[in-house]
Amino acid sequence: MSNGGGGAGASISTHLLDLLEEPIPGVGTYDDFHTIDWVREKCKDRERHRKINSKKKESAWEFTKSLYDAWSGWLVVTLTGLASGALAGVIDIVADWLNDLKEGVCLSAMWFNHEQCCWDSNETTFAERDKCPQWKTWAELILGQAEGPGSYIMNYFMFTFWALSFAFLAVSLVKVFAPYACGSGIPEIKTILSGFIIRGYLGKWTLMIKTITLVLAVASGLSLGKEGPLVHVACCCGNIFSYLFPKYSKNEAKKREVLSAASAAGVSVAFGAPIGGVLFSLEEVSYYFPLKTLWRSFFAALVAAFVLRSINPFGNSRLVLFYVEYHTPWYLFELFPFILLGVFGGLWGSTRFGKYPVLEVITVAAITAIVAFPNPYTRQNTSELIKELFTDCGPLESSQLCQYRSQMNGSQAYPAGSDAAAAPGVYSAMWQLSLALVFKIIMTIFTFGLKVPSGLFIPSMAIGAIAGRIVGIAVEQLAYYHHDWFLFREWCEVGADCITPGLYAMVGAAACLGGVTRMTVSLVVIVFELTGGLEYIVPLMAAVMTSKWVGDAFGREGIYEAHIRLNGYPFLDAKEEFTHTTLAREVMRPRRNDPPLAVLTQDDMTLAELQNIISQTSCNGFPVIVSKESQRLVGFALRRDITIAIENARRKQEGIMLNSWVYFTQHAPTLPADSPRPLKLRSILDMSPFTVTDHTPMEIVVDIFRKLGLRQCLVTHNGRLLGIITKKDILRHMAQMANQDPESIMFN
Amino acid sequence: MSNGGGGAGASISTHLLDLLEEPIPGVGTYDDFHTIDWVREKCKDRERHRKINSKKKESAWEFTKSLYDAWSGWLVVTLTGLASGALAGVIDIVADWLNDLKEGVCLSAMWFNHEQCCWDSNETTFAERDKCPQWKTWAELILGQAEGPGSYIMNYFMFTFWALSFAFLAVSLVKVFAPYACGSGIPEIKTILSGFIIRGYLGKWTLMIKTITLVLAVASGLSLGKEGPLVHVACCCGNIFSYLFPKYSKNEAKKREVLSAASAAGVSVAFGAPIGGVLFSLEEVSYYFPLKTLWRSFFAALVAAFVLRSINPFGNSRLVLFYVEYHTPWYLFELFPFILLGVFGGLWGSTRFGKYPVLEVITVAAITAIVAFPNPYTRQNTSELIKELFTDCGPLESSQLCQYRSQMNGSQAYPAGSDAAAAPGVYSAMWQLSLALVFKIIMTIFTFGLKVPSGLFIPSMAIGAIAGRIVGIAVEQLAYYHHDWFLFREWCEVGADCITPGLYAMVGAAACLGGVTRMTVSLVVIVFELTGGLEYIVPLMAAVMTSKWVGDAFGREGIYEAHIRLNGYPFLDAKEEFTHTTLAREVMRPRRNDPPLAVLTQDDMTLAELQNIISQTSCNGFPVIVSKESQRLVGFALRRDITIAIENARRKQEGIMLNSWVYFTQHAPTLPADSPRPLKLRSILDMSPFTVTDHTPMEIVVDIFRKLGLRQCLVTHNGRLLGIITKKDILRHMAQMANQDPESIMFN
Repeated sequence: MSNGGGGAGASISTHLLDLLEEPIPGVGTYDDFHTIDWVREKCKDRERHRKINSKKKESAWEFTKSLYDAWSGWLVVTLTGLASGALAGVIDIVADWLNDLKEGVCLSAMWFNHEQCCWDSNETTFAERDKCPQWKTWAELILGQAEGPGSYIMNYFMFTFWALSFAFLAVSLVKVFAPYACGSGIPEIKTILSGFIIRGYLGKWTLMIKTITLVLAVASGLSLGKEGPLVHVACCCGNIFSYLFPKYSKNEAKKREVLSAASAAGVSVAFGAPIGGVLFSLEEVSYYFPLKTLWRSFFAALVAAFVLRSINPFGNSRLVLFYVEYHTPWYLFELFPFILLGVFGGLWGSTRFGKYPVLEVITVAAITAIVAFPNPYTRQNTSELIKELFTDCGPLESSQLCQYRSQMNGSQAYPAGSDAAAAPGVYSAMWQLSLALVFKIIMTIFTFGLKVPSGLFIPSMAIGAIAGRIVGIAVEQLAYYHHDWFLFREWCEVGADCITPGLYAMVGAAACLGGVTRMTVSLVVIVFELTGGLEYIVPLMAAVMTSKWVGDAFGREGIYEAHIRLNGYPFLDAKEEFTHTTLAREVMRPRRNDPPLAVLTQDDMTLAELQNIISQTSCNGFPVIVSKESQRLVGFALRRDITIAIENARRKQEGIMLNSWVYFTQHAPTLPADSPRPLKLRSILDMSPFTVTDHTPMEIVVDIFRKLGLRQCLVTHNGRLLGIITKKDILRHMAQMANQDPESIMFN
Repeated sequence: MSNGGGGAGASISTHLLDLLEEPIPGVGTYDDFHTIDWVREKCKDRERHRKINSKKKESAWEFTKSLYDAWSGWLVVTLTGLASGALAGVIDIVADWLNDLKEGVCLSAMWFNHEQCCWDSNETTFAERDKCPQWKTWAELILGQAEGPGSYIMNYFMFTFWALSFAFLAVSLVKVFAPYACGSGIPEIKTILSGFIIRGYLGKWTLMIKTITLVLAVASGLSLGKEGPLVHVACCCGNIFSYLFPKYSKNEAKKREVLSAASAAGVSVAFGAPIGGVLFSLEEVSYYFPLKTLWRSFFAALVAAFVLRSINPFGNSRLVLFYVEYHTPWYLFELFPFILLGVFGGLWGSTRFGKYPVLEVITVAAITAIVAFPNPYTRQNTSELIKELFTDCGPLESSQLCQYRSQMNGSQAYPAGSDAAAAPGVYSAMWQLSLALVFKIIMTIFTFGLKVPSGLFIPSMAIGAIAGRIVGIAVEQLAYYHHDWFLFREWCEVGADCITPGLYAMVGAAACLGGVTRMTVSLVVIVFELTGGLEYIVPLMAAVMTSKWVGDAFGREGIYEAHIRLNGYPFLDAKEEFTHTTLAREVMRPRRNDPPLAVLTQDDMTLAELQNIISQTSCNGFPVIVSKESQRLVGFALRRDITIAIENARRKQEGIMLNSWVYFTQHAPTLPADSPRPLKLRSILDMSPFTVTDHTPMEIVVDIFRKLGLRQCLVTHNGRLLGIITKKDILRHMAQMANQDPESIMFN
């Protein structure tokens, strides 16, 4: 009788509970600063996809919805590409205008920059193009005079004043409104893409403040670039647009596909290099990169590049930022200086940045502005400097860098560019460039780490380009004056200029960028797209590989990995190989002298016991076993899910008390007649937890974690549960093996 | 006493057996037509690496060895790149010479082709350059006359004769010496890269015969390209060079890294597109593509491209095969015809090839030669045809395709190219092109599948280029005669040629290639590198995406996947998503009514029982459990390894008899005193087999198999062994789900 009653009671409660087996709100979401479970997210997405597909034939509306769903991937990358391109264009235009504001204003139209202001004044000669009556320097406006020491000091003062104002505004905005807006953002984006949650890092607030402060920081003349932050801006766009599509907003794994595409779009607009952007996303930032993402990234990068080209902020309607065309090929012996530049790049890449984040932005901005003004190569916009350094000297080139004797006498007696002896202009340029190099190196080291949006790409390229141009001119003059040396004799005819200093600048820029980021293929492709020089791929490759090797010799990690490590993010680098011989049982918890692992049994615990276990431990999940005696594994339940499920049951189900039985099995266990209603938790039980045996080498475990994107993995021996390994355990073990502090890994 | 004796006996035998725990030769290798175990191979490689690293500091010799080991990866890809580039150059030169041999010979030097022969005769005009006294057509040689119907027939006959001879020689060589040399080889290379063993497919014999017959097949004028087979040739080089380095020759996983790089080098030399080659390897052929392989592939591709450029088989010293420069931009309304070309490409891609492999090569060659000769567009080399179709009509262009009125009157009254009305030459060219299109389509369908080396890239590009040029000229004439249409009015000025038919040809070629291969990004990059046209990336992208979508709508798989499926290779496509809801227990063996799974117990079987189990089953491996009662899993042992270990023990150890005990544990079980010496098999036991629970969704299982490269996976329920899932089981299940014949998967 009591047995029958129990059975009837159980069947009623089973019926009631089955009604409650609809998804509990909140289950399957993540806390801030936690790692996502890629496998679960992907399963969720396939489930959603199946549901839509099965409903598709029911009605026209459902069919439309399924079409919308199928196209939403393309839609969201298109929107991201459009927005990234547009924002990049706006940033370019406004930063340019603000930058010129430091020198003067356009009287005819305040919102014109220097170049636009003087666009119409076609009466002046090519060299005097910069000087037009509408454009007034601050000295002309305030003192009414254009020349003389007084006006120089006035211009100097206003230049510094504006630079300081911009820098102050930028740092205040970042500090007050969006602390996440500082830096380049690429290390954090790498971490997020690897499956970490940092709420607000890609939000609309960060986007807004980063866009504004990026413009201000660039205009302030600090030694920083806008290229890295543009990737962050593009990722913010991708994240915001993904909220329009439930497919992406509700699934952390799918959202990361959009972010991968967005980072490709970011690099695409930063350099005008769509293919390089895709490769950058693939090689540098993305963690999982399915082929579908490759196509969408390419599409997003293309759309972004074309929007930027339509806006045409540089006024040259070229997709190529630093288009160059050299009139001489390179010779084999030149590989030697190219490799030297590679070594320089590698050394630059192993410089330790970011040790001075406490330095006040204003101090750095003031020093930058004060030291930069007198030297034309430091005063000008860094992108323009790079462009000038890359340029080959042709007969029309007015730059000081191209004052060779053949140009000096101005006659057509010598063929243009054939007399490669340097004129005094080149020598003074060399001095100024050397000073600019030292200045840039020092300021970049101090600037990186400041709490403003800042990228390292353009400053690194500038440093490399200056060094390269100096080496290039040196080799050129060497070849000119010693053309009978065995090295030059074979290649250089007497008087001919067989050396292209611009090419050296290009190679140097690539080497320094490579040293800092440790990119290889994507970098070569970016430089190749930047300059359009397919012919120079071997020098580039040689320098980039050298710089990578030299950089690796001084410390294996690039700037982004170092930053991630400093912040203690849980990032399992796919590039770094795990080479130790430890086994899973040495890494798993509990360790030898630890208390036993907190486990749940499938059908003989009360709610009070469960809550007791949860409150006494801090782990994020609990293995569920058949019984304490057999230790055979049934599944895995997450702490967050258990807590939410209990709260939900308390709210919705009556009769749940502290002595209610909790069970994870399909059917309720047979209970005494007077026991309260049991609580079924099967719906939150993961019945396919990943397991490895205790003998599994850690190299395999690390591989599984990387490739499948796990959060945790259970360890068994002959079918019995022994322990657990989490991502944090693995990272701590790896840190220990590398003689680093395992406590530096802070998040799970 | 007996117990003590048994203990002593056991300790002696343990001692003896421990001596024998050195690796047994043959264990860990694979049979032909079997799948490799990626995880095991990678572990083996890390073990080898650790051994070298630990010895490194012992002596200078060991240090040199470790350096050699560290650099061998770069060495082998350099060698592969060099060899691929050199072979491609030789193939180009010899194929060109043989191709010209069909028309005539050079009297001054037999080994010159037509162009080289007439190189010195600079007295003739540009248009007459092809005709020089040294070059004799067959009619001139044999009949002594250059003109007239007799000589035409003579040339026709000799053309057909040579074509047939080449085709006959090619097919005989393939049939007799290397049957693996036929086809493009890309489907097999994809399968090999995914972890399959086909012995001899990449051997030196295949390389030699494929190189020779490729030259003959191309020269025979059959509608096939050398680009696909060049990938096979490069992979053969990579495989052969990997035998020089034990790191690669003894490890199937590492060898596949070299093959990935080699396939990049192959595409690089096929099209002169190093970046495209790397992306092709990444997107299309490779299965596992670690970042290290990305750099090495890029390097191999570069080396190969530069060797080819140094050989300079095309005599233009350009890396770019079909360099084009168009003088007008494209307009938005042109996207419509471009998308139409994309649809055409998609339709072409869903054509069913390869149904006629029984057709005799000679018949096809004869028909090809006879029909091809009269039409200049089919007689000429396909690459040259594509080049001509891509070309923009400038004032110097002598091609029939460029006979516009402005060229006809020859005066400078009109600016060159401004009068876009077609002259009769264009109309006759249109007719000939239409005929060529039909001919190429039919012949390509029949040629593919013949037992000669044949690629689809160039024929597909030619078909697309012809269709594109026809559409381009049609649009051009439409725009000329109807320049007041609302479509053209905005863009085209009266009389100006705002349409570039060459661009249409380029877009059409990309669309057809995309339809056949279903590549996207790599294809766009290849075409962009082929033509140097960064500006035309949007039209290309639009057409390629359209062709992919259209092709997918008519059947999701590309030509390579179809070929793999037809051959029954076990290829788990990473692009295809598994979307069904089946669970692991529904796919695992044993099925419901099957006999139970063949298992081994860890310490209570005799050798006779073990051999009995092995001989009565055909599976490739056996799970090892604690005991029949508990069914708890200990590990997994492969059939091949067990057989080798038993044979080895029989040969080396005395006293191994049929009633010897076999054990997999660390220590021998306590045996009766009179029992023969036991056999320890622990060294071949895999103690970390992959397991999933029976509740695991198949989508996760498929993911694990793909990402980790497993051969098999064991299925457990609450810690008890239930069954096994192999790669073959998964593929058969997928075939069943797609309503295909599961028996078509033939290999494991």
